[in-house]
Amino acid sequence: MSSDRIRLASLQSKIKSAEEAASLIKDGMTVGMSGFTRAGEAKAVPLALVERAKKEPVHITLITGASLGNDLDKLMTEAGVLARRMPFQADATLRKAINAGKVMFIDQHLSHTMEMMRCGQLKKPNVTIVEAVAITEEGYIVPSTSVGNSANLVEFADAVIVEINSTHSTNLEGLHDIYVPAARPGRGPIPLINPDDRIGTPYIKVDPAKIAAIVLCDIPDSPSTILPPDDETQAIADHLKDFFLAEVAAGRLPNSLAPLQVGIGTIANAVTSGFLNSPFTDLVQYSEVLQDSTFELMDAGKLKFASASSMTLSEECGARVYGNIEKYKDKLVLRPQEISNHPELIRRLGIIGINTALEFDIYGNVNSTHVGGTKMMNGIGGSGDFARNAQIGIFVTKSLAKDGAISSVVPMVGHVDHTEHDVDVVVTEQGLADLRGLAPRERARLIIDKCVHPSYRDAMNDYFERACARGGQTPHIIEEALSWHVNLEKNGHMLKK
Amino acid sequence: MSSDRIRLASLQSKIKSAEEAASLIKDGMTVGMSGFTRAGEAKAVPLALVERAKKEPVHITLITGASLGNDLDKLMTEAGVLARRMPFQADATLRKAINAGKVMFIDQHLSHTMEMMRCGQLKKPNVTIVEAVAITEEGYIVPSTSVGNSANLVEFADAVIVEINSTHSTNLEGLHDIYVPAARPGRGPIPLINPDDRIGTPYIKVDPAKIAAIVLCDIPDSPSTILPPDDETQAIADHLKDFFLAEVAAGRLPNSLAPLQVGIGTIANAVTSGFLNSPFTDLVQYSEVLQDSTFELMDAGKLKFASASSMTLSEECGARVYGNIEKYKDKLVLRPQEISNHPELIRRLGIIGINTALEFDIYGNVNSTHVGGTKMMNGIGGSGDFARNAQIGIFVTKSLAKDGAISSVVPMVGHVDHTEHDVDVVVTEQGLADLRGLAPRERARLIIDKCVHPSYRDAMNDYFERACARGGQTPHIIEEALSWHVNLEKNGHMLKK
Ligand SMILES: CC(C)(COP(=O)(O)OP(=O)(O)OC[C@H]1O[C@@H](n2cnc3c(N)ncnc32)[C@H](O)[C@@H]1OP(=O)(O)O)[C@@H](O)C(=O)NCCC(=O)NCCS
Ligand SMILES: CC(C)(COP(=O)(O)OP(=O)(O)OC[C@H]1O[C@@H](n2cnc3c(N)ncnc32)[C@H](O)[C@@H]1OP(=O)(O)O)[C@@H](O)C(=O)NCCC(=O)NCCS
Repeated sequence: MSSDRIRLASLQSKIKSAEEAASLIKDGMTVGMSGFTRAGEAKAVPLALVERAKKEPVHITLITGASLGNDLDKLMTEAGVLARRMPFQADATLRKAINAGKVMFIDQHLSHTMEMMRCGQLKKPNVTIVEAVAITEEGYIVPSTSVGNSANLVEFADAVIVEINSTHSTNLEGLHDIYVPAARPGRGPIPLINPDDRIGTPYIKVDPAKIAAIVLCDIPDSPSTILPPDDETQAIADHLKDFFLAEVAAGRLPNSLAPLQVGIGTIANAVTSGFLNSPFTDLVQYSEVLQDSTFELMDAGKLKFASASSMTLSEECGARVYGNIEKYKDKLVLRPQEISNHPELIRRLGIIGINTALEFDIYGNVNSTHVGGTKMMNGIGGSGDFARNAQIGIFVTKSLAKDGAISSVVPMVGHVDHTEHDVDVVVTEQGLADLRGLAPRERARLIIDKCVHPSYRDAMNDYFERACARGGQTPHIIEEALSWHVNLEKNGHMLKK
Repeated sequence: MSSDRIRLASLQSKIKSAEEAASLIKDGMTVGMSGFTRAGEAKAVPLALVERAKKEPVHITLITGASLGNDLDKLMTEAGVLARRMPFQADATLRKAINAGKVMFIDQHLSHTMEMMRCGQLKKPNVTIVEAVAITEEGYIVPSTSVGNSANLVEFADAVIVEINSTHSTNLEGLHDIYVPAARPGRGPIPLINPDDRIGTPYIKVDPAKIAAIVLCDIPDSPSTILPPDDETQAIADHLKDFFLAEVAAGRLPNSLAPLQVGIGTIANAVTSGFLNSPFTDLVQYSEVLQDSTFELMDAGKLKFASASSMTLSEECGARVYGNIEKYKDKLVLRPQEISNHPELIRRLGIIGINTALEFDIYGNVNSTHVGGTKMMNGIGGSGDFARNAQIGIFVTKSLAKDGAISSVVPMVGHVDHTEHDVDVVVTEQGLADLRGLAPRERARLIIDKCVHPSYRDAMNDYFERACARGGQTPHIIEEALSWHVNLEKNGHMLKK
């Protein structure tokens, strides 16, 4: 291994095969791994662990930043490695195992996991595996395309395995800003005032003696597979653009708006791209994940800075960005997810948070996670960290799913991740409902008029009117409130009785 | 008026009758008023407004800190004064009007209202009326037994009316610490590191020219009517004491625990009193409201400091405390509710938050507000500000209500105020369930075993087992999930089909 990747010479002797390193992980252990939205996850060691688990039982509690690439959650699930998993996942196979009750999944606000571990409420990892682009002269770890929970998982672990990934350019060094809050009591404020402030170190500090193995890896990150905007995502982006134009016109926001957080996925990417053809300038992102759209906006001179905890790019965009990282470096920072998602900072900075809902109800309660009220999709992720403390908490979704069998606006959501108190604006391709300062009955009127698909609007009006006749701050016909979900389950369509 | 109550001589000329002052409030206006949990509310002017409304129509949007004493919400409702009301109330007559859809009630996290107003998302008051013990030489306002939203409502108002209340001792001066966050962008950290830090001024700054009227008032605060602990509230307090003892034994908390927030009401007061006969020492409160129990603990030398936004005391305790305020003054501070409830500070200080639920479900979702899922009780208050960011978020309730017709633990709550992500521990007189780090199915098992009343346990086990057979991360039989609420509504008992 070239000495620019492992600059503390004494650590060269710790280079091991992935199998040797994986043998440090014993059945029953709690294991930390780097990785956040398919970026920067440890790769070689979990793959070796999967191979071992085909021969002998290995069941672990796995704690990551968020979702993993390279089908790792799928492979670990199939090999029976995962007994417990937190705080997020986004894999179809693991999801099935979770919903079958075979893997215990602890779905957490992404800013909370490390705080709980710090005060002893979650078991600390026996072993943590982090991907790095390099190890410094001091033996410190330079992360790759995500930071996630890596700094804390390294700090709290008994032993650390570092995967040096040669597919990442060493030029990523300098991109990261690692700040870890102190233990309580006596903790001070987090000294971040502006999204582009650097408050920490460009590496993860670790006692080199704790590094038990170094594994060389040449498996790249999985590229993101973003779909181009369709008519509906474009309409959502347009409604949002109009909303922000009106906010600026009313003097509530400057022309640079406020630091933007945008969730992942196709709708979120389309929304961000929507700013390309807008009059807004000097935009800033303070987000969890950066997607292709971030770099479109930067290249167009619309976006002047982006802070996040990971970057998940398509092959084409990744080549452009990582191939010219020096060009972007002073406009980018990657932080621990505890900092990218911290309530203190989200409130202080006045973030505009835009996240995707599975469904929302006529009062503005949002379900981000549970299909049909019971089956886990991915997890709440950072959506709650942002929505609760955002200056404007926005949720977007298409008004229909599954060819119209599902209305994503329902009388009552089957599961609540974000209560009406935390939801300011909801948007579908049909329109946008600005709920700020409204009482529940007023919210319902607006949501039905603006967001519900026409094919469901009459049924919704009928429900709401009959509910109002019964009374209440939040009128419901309690025996009918979930009937659309029941119809769907029994008859394949929300309105088929 | 003696010159120690109005120390800026030029303001003496602004003394007016309550009727004259109330005439500044016109039909359709937005009005701010002091008052938080029946403490420190403006009294004479709203009473005069009620009288006027009996003769001519006056409909206003009323924004306070929280609930008002002296039946003001009742009287204003009966006189038809309230068109819109936020962010909290606790009055039976107003509650009825809200549930009938006659008053639009906007139920908000108590730390959010002023942030929304600051950035233009809520209308600013035309007139704000605040109760004060005195006006300083500079014309600044010294609040009385609560701070609530008064500082901001004064700042944002076109005109201010001050009620000088002679029933409050002028010795209250010096008790308050008024800090108001700056506008965004560019806001810095809130410089509070310890619960007893003073970071602001002992008065509300105001341009004296904005004071349109001063009204002299001699109506006292309504005393709180705390019930003594009964067997069930005592059992809840005992379970909590055992829990904290175990946390200390496990090294997760020091013997002084962590700054405590405790909600209002009889259970909360019993829980706080429970610390009297505990080995914990040097306790500190960082709370919203102080009740009698705070002073019991202080007098017993158990509690060394208490920070809150208001004090609501019984007649007996009020006489003791206000009669000897100098004795307590260096152990007390009253702050704006934006600061007592601020997510930045709750997270930094590592608060233990203990609040009362109406009901919670087997997965740990909590309903604090909506009886039967539809009818408003009081409002979410600060419970969400605390639970979301607390080091330990605890909810307590008796396992039964209405002589056993209601189980306060249900398959699915009819309304969600706090999601399972924000709820760490739930307690009934039956027992305590520590949910930290558990997946939903594990949470359910524990809640059923520890918290459900025996008369409902078999039915709950039956539900949960049949739900698990259907699968899901959060198993439910969706057509039955709210059936206990439906039974109650139709047949008067949750288990009567
Ligand atoms: C909500 C979330 C699943 C949407 O993901 P997305 O990829 O943008 O949205 P899609 O429209 O493609 O929907 C994903 C799937 O859910 C289905 N779906 C959408 N609405 C639905 C509804 N109301 N009921 C049932 N299924 C629904 C879609 O049909 C699609 O199904 P498929 O995978 O079988 O095709 C995703 O944003 C998420 O996991 N959010 C929670 C975490 C989060 O917000 N993080 C924020 C910070 S990164
Ligand atoms: C939840 C809350 C209403 C409980 O109040 P409390 O006075 O301690 O509790 P009680 O046990 O006396 O219950 C109050 C009423 O609710 C009823 N109740 C309790 N559980 C119920 C349930 N599951 N379903 C229906 N009614 C229920 C009681 O029977 C009682 O009715 P009554 O007034 O007709 O006698 C109150 O704590 C609250 O408003 N909380 C939200 C705000 C908050 O948490 N603020 C925290 C910071 S101060």
